[in-house]
Amino acid sequence: MKRTILFTVLFLFSVLSTHSCKERCPKQPCARVDSTGLNLVPPEFVEPCRPELLSVQQSGEGMWPWQDLARLDEVALKARGLELPLAELWTPGSGGLAQAVIGLRGCTGAFVSDQGLLITNHHCALGAIQKLSRPDQNLLENGFVARSRSAELPAPGVAIWVFNSQRDVTEEIFRELPAGAADLDTALYLRKREKEIVSECEKTPSVRCSISRENDGLRFHLMVSTEITDVRLVFAPPESIGSFGGEIDNWRWPRHSLDFALLRAWVGPDGKPAPHDPNNIPFTPPRHLTVSTTGPAVGDFIMVAGTPYRTSRYRTAREVREAHEWFYPHRETLFSRWISVLERANEQFPEARIPNATALRRLSNGLINARGMIEGIQKNRVIARRLSEEETLRTWIRSTHHPVPETALEELNAFLDSIPYKELDFLLAQMQNGVSAFSAAYLLVKWAHERGLPDPQRTPGWQERDRAGLLSRLNAGDLSYHAASDRMVLSMFLDELDRLAPDQRPAFHVPPVTDEDRKKREDQLDLMFRTTTVMNAAAREALFSATSEMLAQSTDPMIQFVLAWFPQLQDLEKRQLVTEGALLRLRRPWMQATVAFRGRLFYPDANASPRVSFATVTGYSPEDGTWNVPFSTLRGMLAKHRSRPPFSLPSAFLEAAQQENQVPWMDPLLEDVPINFLSNADTTGGNSGSPVLDGKGRLIGINFDRVYENIAGDFGYNPLRSRNIMVDIRAILWTLDRFAQAFDLLTEMGVRRTEK
Amino acid sequence: MKRTILFTVLFLFSVLSTHSCKERCPKQPCARVDSTGLNLVPPEFVEPCRPELLSVQQSGEGMWPWQDLARLDEVALKARGLELPLAELWTPGSGGLAQAVIGLRGCTGAFVSDQGLLITNHHCALGAIQKLSRPDQNLLENGFVARSRSAELPAPGVAIWVFNSQRDVTEEIFRELPAGAADLDTALYLRKREKEIVSECEKTPSVRCSISRENDGLRFHLMVSTEITDVRLVFAPPESIGSFGGEIDNWRWPRHSLDFALLRAWVGPDGKPAPHDPNNIPFTPPRHLTVSTTGPAVGDFIMVAGTPYRTSRYRTAREVREAHEWFYPHRETLFSRWISVLERANEQFPEARIPNATALRRLSNGLINARGMIEGIQKNRVIARRLSEEETLRTWIRSTHHPVPETALEELNAFLDSIPYKELDFLLAQMQNGVSAFSAAYLLVKWAHERGLPDPQRTPGWQERDRAGLLSRLNAGDLSYHAASDRMVLSMFLDELDRLAPDQRPAFHVPPVTDEDRKKREDQLDLMFRTTTVMNAAAREALFSATSEMLAQSTDPMIQFVLAWFPQLQDLEKRQLVTEGALLRLRRPWMQATVAFRGRLFYPDANASPRVSFATVTGYSPEDGTWNVPFSTLRGMLAKHRSRPPFSLPSAFLEAAQQENQVPWMDPLLEDVPINFLSNADTTGGNSGSPVLDGKGRLIGINFDRVYENIAGDFGYNPLRSRNIMVDIRAILWTLDRFAQAFDLLTEMGVRRTEK
Repeated sequence: MKRTILFTVLFLFSVLSTHSCKERCPKQPCARVDSTGLNLVPPEFVEPCRPELLSVQQSGEGMWPWQDLARLDEVALKARGLELPLAELWTPGSGGLAQAVIGLRGCTGAFVSDQGLLITNHHCALGAIQKLSRPDQNLLENGFVARSRSAELPAPGVAIWVFNSQRDVTEEIFRELPAGAADLDTALYLRKREKEIVSECEKTPSVRCSISRENDGLRFHLMVSTEITDVRLVFAPPESIGSFGGEIDNWRWPRHSLDFALLRAWVGPDGKPAPHDPNNIPFTPPRHLTVSTTGPAVGDFIMVAGTPYRTSRYRTAREVREAHEWFYPHRETLFSRWISVLERANEQFPEARIPNATALRRLSNGLINARGMIEGIQKNRVIARRLSEEETLRTWIRSTHHPVPETALEELNAFLDSIPYKELDFLLAQMQNGVSAFSAAYLLVKWAHERGLPDPQRTPGWQERDRAGLLSRLNAGDLSYHAASDRMVLSMFLDELDRLAPDQRPAFHVPPVTDEDRKKREDQLDLMFRTTTVMNAAAREALFSATSEMLAQSTDPMIQFVLAWFPQLQDLEKRQLVTEGALLRLRRPWMQATVAFRGRLFYPDANASPRVSFATVTGYSPEDGTWNVPFSTLRGMLAKHRSRPPFSLPSAFLEAAQQENQVPWMDPLLEDVPINFLSNADTTGGNSGSPVLDGKGRLIGINFDRVYENIAGDFGYNPLRSRNIMVDIRAILWTLDRFAQAFDLLTEMGVRRTEK
Repeated sequence: MKRTILFTVLFLFSVLSTHSCKERCPKQPCARVDSTGLNLVPPEFVEPCRPELLSVQQSGEGMWPWQDLARLDEVALKARGLELPLAELWTPGSGGLAQAVIGLRGCTGAFVSDQGLLITNHHCALGAIQKLSRPDQNLLENGFVARSRSAELPAPGVAIWVFNSQRDVTEEIFRELPAGAADLDTALYLRKREKEIVSECEKTPSVRCSISRENDGLRFHLMVSTEITDVRLVFAPPESIGSFGGEIDNWRWPRHSLDFALLRAWVGPDGKPAPHDPNNIPFTPPRHLTVSTTGPAVGDFIMVAGTPYRTSRYRTAREVREAHEWFYPHRETLFSRWISVLERANEQFPEARIPNATALRRLSNGLINARGMIEGIQKNRVIARRLSEEETLRTWIRSTHHPVPETALEELNAFLDSIPYKELDFLLAQMQNGVSAFSAAYLLVKWAHERGLPDPQRTPGWQERDRAGLLSRLNAGDLSYHAASDRMVLSMFLDELDRLAPDQRPAFHVPPVTDEDRKKREDQLDLMFRTTTVMNAAAREALFSATSEMLAQSTDPMIQFVLAWFPQLQDLEKRQLVTEGALLRLRRPWMQATVAFRGRLFYPDANASPRVSFATVTGYSPEDGTWNVPFSTLRGMLAKHRSRPPFSLPSAFLEAAQQENQVPWMDPLLEDVPINFLSNADTTGGNSGSPVLDGKGRLIGINFDRVYENIAGDFGYNPLRSRNIMVDIRAILWTLDRFAQAFDLLTEMGVRRTEK
């Protein structure tokens, strides 16, 4: 009870005052801004006032690399609620609890039993669930429970990576880089060098290696994982529950989504990774998480462990301004038009709906994202803050006689200003991926071109070892191809290219002037899509073996069209390499100064390497006069139930939810089963499926989304609005227990079946 | 600080648990449901568990008549925060602080100085402000500040009523009612008797009297007030501030509206009410309110005093079901169609926009209201609750051998079931008021008809004394008349009448069958609107003197059309009288039992008589996972600012709002000027402009709206969602001080001008 009162007070302080103690340097330690329990922290933790660092100290800010945990302030974390020694989470060389956390394509997961059972998001297993579905056995619609080990279904395309170790290879990488190399050469050299180190590393069977670049090349780490490819589906809720609220609730709070699934890792009888085989046995993970049955409460300390993909926390003010004023507005405009084109196509051709669905979902997600970025960068005043941080850092460099030249930032910005063809490259990059036929023809032309070069000189990703992958990428495009829609999208891109200023436009692309010109272009598009064979699997396989010379003589008008653009696309690739090399050269000194200035409070931008965020369960104010409380409930989910998707609950679920007795899955304060909850953890894309741990390291939830107000958090954590959304462990256990009666799974997770 | 922590705890309990302690009888006193501070109340206050009464004890429920205050539990109210003796608020015979509260058409107001200065809502003074506006002096757009007494502007059409006394006249009313009178005769008798008592009472100059019927005639009260007609406009904010957010924010939270205005009551040099005259002097009110400069805080006890118009808290379950399943759905359908018709008219005839604006606003408000009722009755489960309350009351009647017959409810419901022509009457009542030309012609026909009767036998409201009022009502309609729109609306009503079942339809109304029939009807409508003179002021004045016989021979097709319908409309009126008499006879016993059962916790339905609600400043949860916090701020208002109405703030306001130093108008916890706030006070239409008092009786705000989730509160207070919206006194003082520099007014209100 005392604890409850304590947290209620903390919570209310956060309700009433988080927005009031501004980012300026407070006269006294800004305890009231704290929704994380800092006012319980001994004063020695409060470092000398540095306004730009306040949020790092007092909130969930920071995606901390596992190997950096040792340099965090353990006393402070313990005061906030950590009950484990930090070394227990991760100790370089010997591992730790974090070994229970695994990676899977674009997502995170975690082991929850010593028999390889693992948990992730439903949306992370969606591809496999779709592929396993048949008309007579629709796993997407009905969900799936394996009632025995032998009933588990091999999950197509799913592989998991169990993280082993990480090594700083910065020195090794740079060792042979000639001094004063041109930027293009530097970029090419680095790719080659990385490839060599990775190849060497992957000589051990079942080991997957990759190089993580920290902040455009400040440091390079070799990440070593064990890859397991025999992964099987154990439990999936029906989509109606697993993505309850669908696109409407996406990025939103209040949320009521049971976005979780269970998989199992299987290995050969010798315990080593092996391809799927009936003789395989469940994998014994190095560590697995204890499953909490009590879940989180308001004000609780939590940890979110996962592989966040990309943030831009150290981009310069100039770069953020470009993102705010140019990139996201361009994306917003383009995606809006693109969506209109596809919607028009869907109206004209009802059979286009299914092939266009994925693109529409991607575009609408990108559009919301762009709008959230534009709104959020503005609302969080990111540019003004970044400018002031830069000023502070410049002053610090001067006053400490730091060896980094004061002009480092100006040089970096000057280079960014000098990048040519931004408008053109923006469109080309989108067109190259967004028009299926164009994309296929480009792949064929590029592949022929690269094969004309000796293998080691080829662009990474276009070597002989990549042949199978490229071919399957070519074939994958067929599923979402609808010729008439694709033609309309290409036509839209040509219109966009027409709008470019003449100095951004290649000479051969002549915008139509007369109606006749326009008709001629449309006729050409008709011809291209009528006669091209690049979307015909059989014909395409022949083209995949053709040389550049053969392609040059091809009569396929799509191939000819791409050949016309090919030099531009090669230039684009080269420009990207030059930029990469230049940024490596120019950003390093500024980042070095940043690291030195921030000291132990520095954390690198997300780069798909394993991280952990220390946070607090807390709500936030989406707008003046309102507060999003950090828990949603089963009752609230029932209130959203309608007869139509995405808010339609299956009758078995309704029945289970309407039972009188929901003990022990119900929260005593909420008097209901909690479904989702919020915290101020620092997350981004890639954190999907991240396990959420309590202070003791027990699993209390699964991360699956962020709130709309946190989209721009990628450019700068905001203690007031950076909130992530998680499934409460009690919702997961309730689902397994009351909805699915998956008692064996509960037992395997160490949870006792409850009396009904 | 301790107080803050205390309230934070109370507040959080209400956040987390108001929805969880259900309306069932709790095992222990339901202290956690309390957002009002009841857990500070000594246990002896907690009456034996009666679930249906819990909300009355523990929330802001109840619109308490002034003369009933003495029977309230003063100890309990003091524990909640009342610091005045209840007798100080109002003592029958000698008055009290409540005398500072005044009535004005459809609204409430309060004196804030000893010189007759009074405060109400901007929207309550809107009609006068509009009438005072001229192209060269647009008070609506620019607002108004009288910089001296002589600059105050007589407010056209505004009169205020200063409440003097109230007397139970039930006995007096019924004394001469013959036993066993028919229902129609009872209704007519009561109207006549009420008129007599009112006439007698109004013999004193400047005294306005009225009879308040409690719950369809349970009790009758004679309300006696002093009427002051020389009321002048002293201060009005620009409409952009006074109704910031306009129709978009109407009924909504978060809200940021400075909906207040200042008026002054003037009287003759002898201190008695007198018509406007340059020699008049400011009125010295019997009491005026002290203006607080510190305003309310979360969890504070408050009182809202005003004249709520109408609630339906004691309607039977059957009546609520009819409202939910028939009345509001019918209204929703009709109003939706009506709005479409007027929007189509506005598109066809741009000049129709201004005359149609008022109707569109009324209809859209009615539509939101209907939807809120339908949603809210469902969400609050009003019908199920009412059924269970009825069952409890029946049991109580049996077990206590209460003299009311157990069948009272059945008889009442049986009568309600027997009311004929509901569908027809619903349409006729709307048509009679909603079609301007029809309405004018009806008034002329009815007036002629009534004048054919001896004066005492006429329908109340149609006697010689009403002549001037009727004439001005006729003329008032011209402002909002647009012939082509009116014709479209009448055509819509005829279509609606076509849809009635044959037994609901008068024989002479024959729905068109063929296209020819339809064309004939349209031609007739064209003719009617082309040739009628009822909307021509000069011609109409002649018709106003015509006898029934003369009208019967009129060639005006609108008059002839109304004459055809007139017997129906007379029948409708008669049916209404029969219903009135029957309800008086049938509802009384059930209400008497209700009163006896509820004891001191009974409060009568709102009936435009002065009431007070005791409440607490508190937020609410509009949906699962969210909480509306009870304060909005100036910063939030600025964040809503856009370049277009209704969210466009004047530049002087922006300038004042962006000043650094907002002390002393800023709230120390919010660190900002509070604009609006929420409480669980029990209010409804008519409470507009109601003063909000703190525990000491000081003015801390002005009520102006309810939240959408509280629309259905009229049918039953819900402690979870019954919330009203008020302007914070600090927002009012800030506006006078910083925006308007109205320092003399501040001084008059006893508020010291602040240092900038």
